[in-house]
Amino acid sequence: MHKIPVGVLGASGYAGRELCALLLRHPALALAFAGAQGQRGQSARVGGGATVTFVGNDEAPLDGAALVFCALPHGASAPYVTRARAAGAKVVDLSADLRPGNGGCTPAAYGLTEWLRDTIRGADVVANPGCYPTATLLALLPLLERGLVADGATITVNAASGVTGAGLTPKPELLFGEVTENFTAYGVGNEHRHLAEMRAAVAALGADVDVLFTPHLLPVARGILATITVPLREPLAEPLALWRERYAGEQFIEITASAPALREVAHRNVVRISATSAANVRTPTLVVTAAIDNLVKGAAGQALQNANLLLGLEESAGLPT
Amino acid sequence: MHKIPVGVLGASGYAGRELCALLLRHPALALAFAGAQGQRGQSARVGGGATVTFVGNDEAPLDGAALVFCALPHGASAPYVTRARAAGAKVVDLSADLRPGNGGCTPAAYGLTEWLRDTIRGADVVANPGCYPTATLLALLPLLERGLVADGATITVNAASGVTGAGLTPKPELLFGEVTENFTAYGVGNEHRHLAEMRAAVAALGADVDVLFTPHLLPVARGILATITVPLREPLAEPLALWRERYAGEQFIEITASAPALREVAHRNVVRISATSAANVRTPTLVVTAAIDNLVKGAAGQALQNANLLLGLEESAGLPT
Amino acid sequence: MHKIPVGVLGASGYAGRELCALLLRHPALALAFAGAQGQRGQSARVGGGATVTFVGNDEAPLDGAALVFCALPHGASAPYVTRARAAGAKVVDLSADLRPGNGGCTPAAYGLTEWLRDTIRGADVVANPGCYPTATLLALLPLLERGLVADGATITVNAASGVTGAGLTPKPELLFGEVTENFTAYGVGNEHRHLAEMRAAVAALGADVDVLFTPHLLPVARGILATITVPLREPLAEPLALWRERYAGEQFIEITASAPALREVAHRNVVRISATSAANVRTPTLVVTAAIDNLVKGAAGQALQNANLLLGLEESAGLPT
Amino acid sequence: MHKIPVGVLGASGYAGRELCALLLRHPALALAFAGAQGQRGQSARVGGGATVTFVGNDEAPLDGAALVFCALPHGASAPYVTRARAAGAKVVDLSADLRPGNGGCTPAAYGLTEWLRDTIRGADVVANPGCYPTATLLALLPLLERGLVADGATITVNAASGVTGAGLTPKPELLFGEVTENFTAYGVGNEHRHLAEMRAAVAALGADVDVLFTPHLLPVARGILATITVPLREPLAEPLALWRERYAGEQFIEITASAPALREVAHRNVVRISATSAANVRTPTLVVTAAIDNLVKGAAGQALQNANLLLGLEESAGLPT
Repeated sequence: MHKIPVGVLGASGYAGRELCALLLRHPALALAFAGAQGQRGQSARVGGGATVTFVGNDEAPLDGAALVFCALPHGASAPYVTRARAAGAKVVDLSADLRPGNGGCTPAAYGLTEWLRDTIRGADVVANPGCYPTATLLALLPLLERGLVADGATITVNAASGVTGAGLTPKPELLFGEVTENFTAYGVGNEHRHLAEMRAAVAALGADVDVLFTPHLLPVARGILATITVPLREPLAEPLALWRERYAGEQFIEITASAPALREVAHRNVVRISATSAANVRTPTLVVTAAIDNLVKGAAGQALQNANLLLGLEESAGLPT
Repeated sequence: MHKIPVGVLGASGYAGRELCALLLRHPALALAFAGAQGQRGQSARVGGGATVTFVGNDEAPLDGAALVFCALPHGASAPYVTRARAAGAKVVDLSADLRPGNGGCTPAAYGLTEWLRDTIRGADVVANPGCYPTATLLALLPLLERGLVADGATITVNAASGVTGAGLTPKPELLFGEVTENFTAYGVGNEHRHLAEMRAAVAALGADVDVLFTPHLLPVARGILATITVPLREPLAEPLALWRERYAGEQFIEITASAPALREVAHRNVVRISATSAANVRTPTLVVTAAIDNLVKGAAGQALQNANLLLGLEESAGLPT
Repeated sequence: MHKIPVGVLGASGYAGRELCALLLRHPALALAFAGAQGQRGQSARVGGGATVTFVGNDEAPLDGAALVFCALPHGASAPYVTRARAAGAKVVDLSADLRPGNGGCTPAAYGLTEWLRDTIRGADVVANPGCYPTATLLALLPLLERGLVADGATITVNAASGVTGAGLTPKPELLFGEVTENFTAYGVGNEHRHLAEMRAAVAALGADVDVLFTPHLLPVARGILATITVPLREPLAEPLALWRERYAGEQFIEITASAPALREVAHRNVVRISATSAANVRTPTLVVTAAIDNLVKGAAGQALQNANLLLGLEESAGLPT
Repeated sequence: MHKIPVGVLGASGYAGRELCALLLRHPALALAFAGAQGQRGQSARVGGGATVTFVGNDEAPLDGAALVFCALPHGASAPYVTRARAAGAKVVDLSADLRPGNGGCTPAAYGLTEWLRDTIRGADVVANPGCYPTATLLALLPLLERGLVADGATITVNAASGVTGAGLTPKPELLFGEVTENFTAYGVGNEHRHLAEMRAAVAALGADVDVLFTPHLLPVARGILATITVPLREPLAEPLALWRERYAGEQFIEITASAPALREVAHRNVVRISATSAANVRTPTLVVTAAIDNLVKGAAGQALQNANLLLGLEESAGLPT
């Protein structure tokens, strides 16, 4: 079979390498180029035994690609998206720049696949969701769509991420000697960049609720666990049934009886979700937990899911479950 | 100086060993015996270069001790507390058995030192607080004492603990190969044993609020971080000032401008607390974070703090800061 | 295509689960049963989203399997191997029982695939090599086959393994709280069980040399790195060329210019080998380093490689590279 | 008691901070200044609850210090040593610059305390040993002093270090996400800088032997374990007795019956050493293992041990055991 050529800009970061690794094993897509401005001409392992050789982002042959993934740093995407579009390529952008709530001016479909699959299919440019919003919104979607959250309530999202979420740029606080045997919260006070994205999605779903988001840094390489407290309009007899019904047939969503663990989702393009009614509180409240691999379902895997849709392929093509 | 003899029952667990290590360095206390039923006659390292040799708990010379620490498993303390009292010793019990909310029948003072110091000083038996309640209640105390929490609200406590909190009894799910690169929630749905203790303390402080507590298991050996969301009666202009004022002069409490990290409290008998007003929510809400070493301030260190009070010594004697 | 049924005895340990996970994805083999005496009737995740339900080892339908993998504890294999053979199944035994140097009485081919491929192909029972010997012997084979090691010399093998090598049976010294931030040697003094297996292979290759083996326990879940010092008969001008030539065409052996890292082989059925001449010593000496995933190339992966040969399939069928 | 003022240059690195933390608790020394060129004016935690505020190295009031610790990067020490001497201060230099085998032109005593205590006492400048040589040479000293190593033999030193040995300067390969669940060798081929220092010491002890040193990077923050293979002139009946006798009365050296573990030496100024005769080899051979905390006995602790000697204090003053 002739493979469809696709390219990656910003291929040297964690998400970019994960994407390259997925593309090198893809049955229907071929990696046309891997761009990395600072490492052009160099080779790098991208998982398993595979290596890629980087070209400069500015020299990447955009017109030879049917689709371009932009995995550039936040703030750097816009010109490359424009160029790729001008060259006739579709685009999946992994930066925050085009996501809802981030003030981006390029119209892009929001790429939370299991929510907006049909919109994505018809789009030319997709803004791939952030890692925290992916876990959080997939966990909340069944509640929000059915209007089950108490009006005016605050949804409390406590989430913890592995350090690859902070990228490969070396900073002293990300050294092994600083992270091992450590754990802390950051962006405390509801100030994290991903909040706007969550709020925009919640608002789009018509919910009159606040979101209070506190991220934490875990001493693990990969994975996000979100523990979400949701005040309900009224008690829910069998919480899991709601998720099972909403996500029936979804191959990348797993509903579990007990809280998921990072180990269960590592290197897989899935979100695992559980939900339990809280005892010993007078307000009916659910505790919803969701786990993803931040580099797969939270970045490169979901990006590929979206790319498959944009290119008319099977949504699951080339994705590890 | 003649040292006061004290003993430890249940000395072979994590908290028991930590206690022995502290006692061996204590300027005014001498370790009269270290009891461990299953390891009697054996020796073990208890930190640094120090070793102890265990006697059976049942053969421990209780009448030679001015005070006995019971670090026995939950449910096993009561007869030993009775025996130690009969032998004339004061008792600090580290199990859950005598803590408020746990239905214990022996009257014991609740050993959250910075809250109930005066009561502890006059007591014969002290129930040492659980590790999660220590971090949580010290974080909440200034708010609860001043009645600042919104009536009828739910305080959301998300906390994560290192694995020593689960003890030294080997279970497959605590093996290194299972815990490394992993993270999960447990006791989800507000069912953890420590909840009753927190609720009892909150009620004793006169607050009409619920507590929703979700613990997590961290891939670290030691440390607890509690991230606590508190709906307020009204906004608080300078949150940190409240804690700084309440805890002025406390040598084991540190108030920090940003969220504390486990690394900052490891092997120390301190709690570090921070508090930030949440932006982007309509209800005035604080995010309070607190970190302790679960084996020191959350167990052996606080037990020693209480023992010092019971024995008329300097509260800080022999405690690492 | 009709798949060939194969079974696993001892399927609940680390190697057994890894095997089940591989078999569930195998293009030509079907998992007929997964035996685990102590967990019969229970289900367990075996990697990714896959689960298996265990039968008792004694109730496993051996006669429905063309091949049986025995992943039972050392010492427990023999009767099951006999039974499986009686039922007409071929056997790959992952225990130490049938390996050379271990005094086993059942004749079995030694399953170091890249060394003894042709013998294995014609065998009915294969003794799958130990994890340490796999890394060590594949590293040494090119030197030993060509008689390049100095006569009467001692080959010094220092190796370090992740904790899954010690199995899933819970022991206090394997708890996360004991292994994290720790490292030590064990079996010091050349007493480890795997030594006999290495010595037997070295002798079979006609080398008059000693092996001095010191294993270490690493704070990682998976992987073995062997660092091997080899006194040579005479200097070797381009060491890597020897390995490249010997292993040309081998798809599960990678020769690297610098020392391999565990991360490069995790979850893969490969050994990565490098070799460097030692400067600053008067005796010509090589430092050879080799890395494997102890559960894949060091256990389940190599077992499947051998099973593929026994069943006349492509050697690489179902194996992750 | 009036405390003696001492200063630290290069105080912001791992060793410098460890030194500051030790000095802040020292009973007879006062920290006069903590120099850190790039962070002058900033404050940092240096362990426990203590913080220091840095001055520029060039503005440090050298003439107010009786002794200056130079913890500057390798290559940068010389001018500061000269300046400190000109200001009348004694110097303990933690860089490699003045160590034997490194071609330094300033005459300095080699600060392996338990070997050269008397020389150090009379010196003005001490070159503090490297971390690997500290563990290795203290392990070998009893053998070398007694001439027990086989003539012309190669001593094989395999050692593994925690990542703080590589410093606080951020590099991608030291990020948590790269080091966790990883392990590799580096400087393979006997090329590491510390080799010259080991060779110089071995030669000074009159031994006609080679050293073959292979370091490894461990996924732990602190600690070095050296596993050393030593061909002997003739068998040694009770190996441990040799170390016990040589180091009798040494408070910072512990001889153990089984191989030491990193956990046993963390945060302590000790080396733990064990030795075992190798079975199954024809040449009489010992396997000697030694563990230190690379930042304490391997750097700041030993530096303070030496400073105590230079200043006429108790050698153990202010040192954690």
